[in-house]
Amino acid sequence: MNRRDFTQLSALTFGWTLLPSYARTAGASQKPVSYAAIGLGTVSDIFMRACANSRNAKVTALVTGHPDTKGAKYAAMYGIPKTSIYTYETFDRILENKDVEAVYVGLPNSMHCEYTLRAARAGKHVFCEKPMAISSAECRSMIEACRQAKVKLMIGYRVQYDPTWMQAIEIVKSGKIGKLQSFQGGFVSWQRTTSWRLSRKLCGGGSLMDLGIYPLNAIRHITGEEPVDFTAVVATRDISGLYAEVEQSLEWTMKLPSGIIASCGCSYGQVGPSFLNINGDEGCLQVEPAFFYDGVHLRGQAGGQAIDALSPGKAPYQFTLEAEHFSGCIRNDKEPESPGEEGLKDMLAIEAIYNAAGAPIA
Amino acid sequence: MNRRDFTQLSALTFGWTLLPSYARTAGASQKPVSYAAIGLGTVSDIFMRACANSRNAKVTALVTGHPDTKGAKYAAMYGIPKTSIYTYETFDRILENKDVEAVYVGLPNSMHCEYTLRAARAGKHVFCEKPMAISSAECRSMIEACRQAKVKLMIGYRVQYDPTWMQAIEIVKSGKIGKLQSFQGGFVSWQRTTSWRLSRKLCGGGSLMDLGIYPLNAIRHITGEEPVDFTAVVATRDISGLYAEVEQSLEWTMKLPSGIIASCGCSYGQVGPSFLNINGDEGCLQVEPAFFYDGVHLRGQAGGQAIDALSPGKAPYQFTLEAEHFSGCIRNDKEPESPGEEGLKDMLAIEAIYNAAGAPIA
Repeated sequence: MNRRDFTQLSALTFGWTLLPSYARTAGASQKPVSYAAIGLGTVSDIFMRACANSRNAKVTALVTGHPDTKGAKYAAMYGIPKTSIYTYETFDRILENKDVEAVYVGLPNSMHCEYTLRAARAGKHVFCEKPMAISSAECRSMIEACRQAKVKLMIGYRVQYDPTWMQAIEIVKSGKIGKLQSFQGGFVSWQRTTSWRLSRKLCGGGSLMDLGIYPLNAIRHITGEEPVDFTAVVATRDISGLYAEVEQSLEWTMKLPSGIIASCGCSYGQVGPSFLNINGDEGCLQVEPAFFYDGVHLRGQAGGQAIDALSPGKAPYQFTLEAEHFSGCIRNDKEPESPGEEGLKDMLAIEAIYNAAGAPIA
Repeated sequence: MNRRDFTQLSALTFGWTLLPSYARTAGASQKPVSYAAIGLGTVSDIFMRACANSRNAKVTALVTGHPDTKGAKYAAMYGIPKTSIYTYETFDRILENKDVEAVYVGLPNSMHCEYTLRAARAGKHVFCEKPMAISSAECRSMIEACRQAKVKLMIGYRVQYDPTWMQAIEIVKSGKIGKLQSFQGGFVSWQRTTSWRLSRKLCGGGSLMDLGIYPLNAIRHITGEEPVDFTAVVATRDISGLYAEVEQSLEWTMKLPSGIIASCGCSYGQVGPSFLNINGDEGCLQVEPAFFYDGVHLRGQAGGQAIDALSPGKAPYQFTLEAEHFSGCIRNDKEPESPGEEGLKDMLAIEAIYNAAGAPIA
């Protein structure tokens, strides 16, 4: 067994220990939760692969604008009957489909709200990708719709379910790095040629909506605090016109009520690390890569000891853990660890950051 | 030869190649430049050890408030005659000492200006530690005094002389990481129990003056641009009263005229990495540790290749390189790479950051 094998084994064991008991016990003895994947783009493709790897989640229906091509392809891959392929027009008939308990919203951000509301009206639980929507008003209406329909709502903060991130949070909560003092983080991504993410109407914003949300959410999640004070600067150096509607890059600072401060950056069209530095007065943790689909690497000093842990598994294992968690919540009637309120709080912070930068949102 | 030996050898060779020719040729064939160390605290102790390791710098006089104890100790260590030990009261008599060509100002920040002016009046070249002073007005008067006295003025930006940092800058300038897009950086330091650095009167500010200046200067130095737009947040979580006069922590963002943006943090009283991420549109560099006395580690992707370089030597080798550079400038009548103007520009940025944070300076 080499070092990597060992680290992966440790992390797997550790991750398993950290998973809530209802997530660990769900699955084997319970009927898998049946999902309709709404939108058949990249992220839904990953979600479907994740379900195929899971113990308690199964894709049983598809919603797509291309039922005869994309729809037929994925139906064949996952053994979905033709009658369970819906279009956006026929989606509401999903109410009658007893073999769909939940939906996965893998659509452009601007459509998250509408399809969450329609799914809730159809009595289906909702697993919605991040960012939750394109405004806090939309987030509030999504939470309210799911509450009224008595369906569960989870937002896809996949790294919250990554065992190495869970280990980092466990170390912080143990007090082994002392009192938290500051964070520095960033997530940048190589240029996209064309994408709905570069449309303000569809995405609601630029790199902050897609990438900056990761360090933002991680800091909120680790501290359990809501930032109260923001400053920000935006920039678009690319002159190709690709970023005509949304910001290419953004850097911001924020302060938490306890006095913890942070600076973070995000950008499209550049190469750089995805990272979070978690600094305490007695130790520190560095996560880098921090926000990729796999390979999350945690290093640091805590309780006088060196920390070095690498996430187990390969993509889409974070999605599998998410799907298993939400399925466990549905079967055991528990609130998801990342409910709609989590998405709303991020959106309020995102609106405040855009406001500080003097840039519009949605 | 193991990997570490090899890296150190490469870096040594590389560093040597990068040194300006007048620095490389100075020394062996020229009489060492004679320095008076002003202030015998930690940093002057390092400077004197650095000179002892150098090819062209020599400490020949001391200025101290404790001539009989500290003064006598260092005089014995470095073979300095008793007649070349000055107090702050007798300092101006150094004008008559032909065996002092330059001074090293290793005093608290608030004394940098006064002793630079007095040294210039005595016709001595000035090597002054960073931060240059506690206000841009002081920096301007120091530059003017040295100009009038026709003496050279260098500010102690030691990492500018570190071969691994020089390599990083060389890579950036080669275009191998494409167009620069953003920086994220930070420098935090473990708590000090008591220090002049925690006195507003003596230091002029808190962690920004002492630590934040490193990523600030690195970004200015790499880009050759002056930041035009700042936002900042300050915080002091420590409730012991230690930071009653100066900020404990500060995070800021800034924008350069070209559109490059950056976020940086600095803090006393916390554990964390000292780092700079340099993100381009075709590659990136990460320096971490970035700002320590030794062990500077450069990683990244540039021109399609992986970069991994570790600084050679052990502390105080950066100080030795600085001393050799300044001595070479004096012997060859060249402007130092980090002249007074460099210190002034940082101080203008520091004033703008404090202003953005709503915190006072000096």
